[in-house]
Amino acid sequence: MIKVNENFLKLQSGYLFPEIGRRLLEFAKANRAAKLIKLGIGDVTEPLAPAVIEAMHTAVDEMSRAETFHGYDDSGRGYDFLIDAIIANDFAPRGVELDRSEVFISDGSKCDTGNFQEIFGLDNVVAVTDPVYPVYVDTNVMAGRTGPAESGGRYGKIVYMPCTAENDFVPELPTQPVDLIYLCFPNNPTGAVASKEQLAEWVKYAREHKAVILFDAAYEAFISDPDLPHSIYEVDGAREVAVEFRSFSKTAGFTGVRCSFVIVPKELKACKADGGTCEVNSIWSRRHCTKFNGVSYITQKGAAAVYTAEGKKQISRIIELYMANAALIRRSLAELGYQVYGGVNAPYVWLKTPDGLSSWEFFDKLLERAHVIGTPGAGFGAAGEGYFRLSAFNKPENVKEAMKRFQKM
Amino acid sequence: MIKVNENFLKLQSGYLFPEIGRRLLEFAKANRAAKLIKLGIGDVTEPLAPAVIEAMHTAVDEMSRAETFHGYDDSGRGYDFLIDAIIANDFAPRGVELDRSEVFISDGSKCDTGNFQEIFGLDNVVAVTDPVYPVYVDTNVMAGRTGPAESGGRYGKIVYMPCTAENDFVPELPTQPVDLIYLCFPNNPTGAVASKEQLAEWVKYAREHKAVILFDAAYEAFISDPDLPHSIYEVDGAREVAVEFRSFSKTAGFTGVRCSFVIVPKELKACKADGGTCEVNSIWSRRHCTKFNGVSYITQKGAAAVYTAEGKKQISRIIELYMANAALIRRSLAELGYQVYGGVNAPYVWLKTPDGLSSWEFFDKLLERAHVIGTPGAGFGAAGEGYFRLSAFNKPENVKEAMKRFQKM
Repeated sequence: MIKVNENFLKLQSGYLFPEIGRRLLEFAKANRAAKLIKLGIGDVTEPLAPAVIEAMHTAVDEMSRAETFHGYDDSGRGYDFLIDAIIANDFAPRGVELDRSEVFISDGSKCDTGNFQEIFGLDNVVAVTDPVYPVYVDTNVMAGRTGPAESGGRYGKIVYMPCTAENDFVPELPTQPVDLIYLCFPNNPTGAVASKEQLAEWVKYAREHKAVILFDAAYEAFISDPDLPHSIYEVDGAREVAVEFRSFSKTAGFTGVRCSFVIVPKELKACKADGGTCEVNSIWSRRHCTKFNGVSYITQKGAAAVYTAEGKKQISRIIELYMANAALIRRSLAELGYQVYGGVNAPYVWLKTPDGLSSWEFFDKLLERAHVIGTPGAGFGAAGEGYFRLSAFNKPENVKEAMKRFQKM
Repeated sequence: MIKVNENFLKLQSGYLFPEIGRRLLEFAKANRAAKLIKLGIGDVTEPLAPAVIEAMHTAVDEMSRAETFHGYDDSGRGYDFLIDAIIANDFAPRGVELDRSEVFISDGSKCDTGNFQEIFGLDNVVAVTDPVYPVYVDTNVMAGRTGPAESGGRYGKIVYMPCTAENDFVPELPTQPVDLIYLCFPNNPTGAVASKEQLAEWVKYAREHKAVILFDAAYEAFISDPDLPHSIYEVDGAREVAVEFRSFSKTAGFTGVRCSFVIVPKELKACKADGGTCEVNSIWSRRHCTKFNGVSYITQKGAAAVYTAEGKKQISRIIELYMANAALIRRSLAELGYQVYGGVNAPYVWLKTPDGLSSWEFFDKLLERAHVIGTPGAGFGAAGEGYFRLSAFNKPENVKEAMKRFQKM
């Protein structure tokens, strides 16, 4: 008699974005003439860079001839041409040395951040920020590392670290021992950043407690402040305690193409029940090669083109466009009296909902009155209640129009 | 203190194919002049069909313009254009009706067959054939559904169903109750097929025991016998008890492009601890949308082209080429006195190793004396000992040359 994984039954109602989609569809049906502007889900709108397009055409052609055809990626971890480009461009210039075997190419940071917990025991205590990217929590619920949902949508056993205006949206160190810590900077959803000193505090904590930090750096490309770290490995000692997730989704508009990578340093160890330790890198490698079969060759060629001279220029123009949107959102809303955060080194603006509205109330109001879609802060956790996320991923003209509608409202 | 998932430590030495790769590399270093012929891992060698290439070029161009750019696949389950083509071409003509919501597009059957077990409880008893595709077993070990490895490489708690020449490589029904049954027909590695009557026996068993069959049909495109079922849903009552996995990897040479799909009928239920049941489809949907973010738009467009009139013709020519290889291998080895199985409705030929050699001994002998690489049966399970797999995926001239070398040896 087949038994379900009961942990799945603990999950609260649908993942945030499907719920937004549902309300949206309902509204659109009743208001067919409304011109909606989506500043919600955080999907990119600019097309792929010409260098990427060219590389992918070339790769498609390679796949049409037996001599240049690519089947399985034998290593299972990604092609060296891409791994080498990543190391040389994203890490070496920041003083971070990596070995090829420490980089795992994958098909998305959602998968990577969702899957990584699997190689750790169920008895580890998980710490997440609140608000938080829901995937970190939901995948731990599915695995059975949490208790049931409590009032307010929090799950038992998870340690929530509130991020509010009071702490500049950078959490305090936990007061109880935790083993697996999810951090995301620049942050989704708050747009907050962490300084090197702040990350160093976390690395110090993790070293002292033999904890592991799962560091999500999917938005590092949006950092403009030269003093901010892009990688957690810019902090001394982080190689022994941190895994880092990177993605081409927002950096290079790959949300529909699917490419990401994970850094797992060789020094990182996990404890065994017999008192010994084992290399996290080799355990992850085993998991990666058993449950995954590589990223499309065509996609990997496209991703490598992001690191060419032309690719870099083209990508940074796209990022500038989005960050100009973010600046406009910040400025416009501040002028209207909103309290706004983020949006300087991150593509998300986080705002305090006005008039004591709940974040879903503000969602509905914004949808009905301005035909603008954002993301309710409560969807990211209890401490997100009373906040709202606006994404800078849209055409500048749409963002301008959205700001006009805010003004009217 | 971070604790590893101890289940990973139960895993036996590396996954089969890395071990083959290791021996191969060692041999190649010592024998640089040797011209190796790979009939091992089962990777395709023919380039993608022209219709697929054309569709992917068009899709790449769409990604270069904002008006036709595709970001996230909002449904998370794959595009309707591909799902509709699958239903209309792979299922409807065989009398199998499917709803769009029963099809989940994914990036590979390795991932799908590896991940699916996750939505079931750890207290389910797993049954696999022996020999078996190692991913089914290894992913259950990782999840903690097995005991430690025993002598012979088998794991405690798993029910192994031997497939040998005596039962035509189709297993008998288990004599003890099992909950989760992995079946693969046409079979990897034996090349055996199951008739509709044989599948009906399994469906009957599953219905009686409220078990679930995870049916891997990755090789259905290689069936030539018109009486054989391509889908388990051709059997009445299978919708209540079976999940089916399909892949474009072998059908259309997508090993380096990555596209597959899973069928999860709405009638399929799993038991809850409270005595009720829940829809497996909705639980899988939750898992799929939380831990996965869709397949590349370009890849999905390429996969849809497989179902065009041109695409179908081109694909079937490639399959004929591989199956002519299989026929040549069968004929040549039979003439040399080998006992051969499979290779008629499947791209794998399964042979009895001669002279009582173990399958790894035969692997080494074949490599050293004929410079041909195959896959040792023991790598697929204890009952695979004394057998050996040859894959039909290669250029016809290479297969001919390999057969000559067998003759000399």
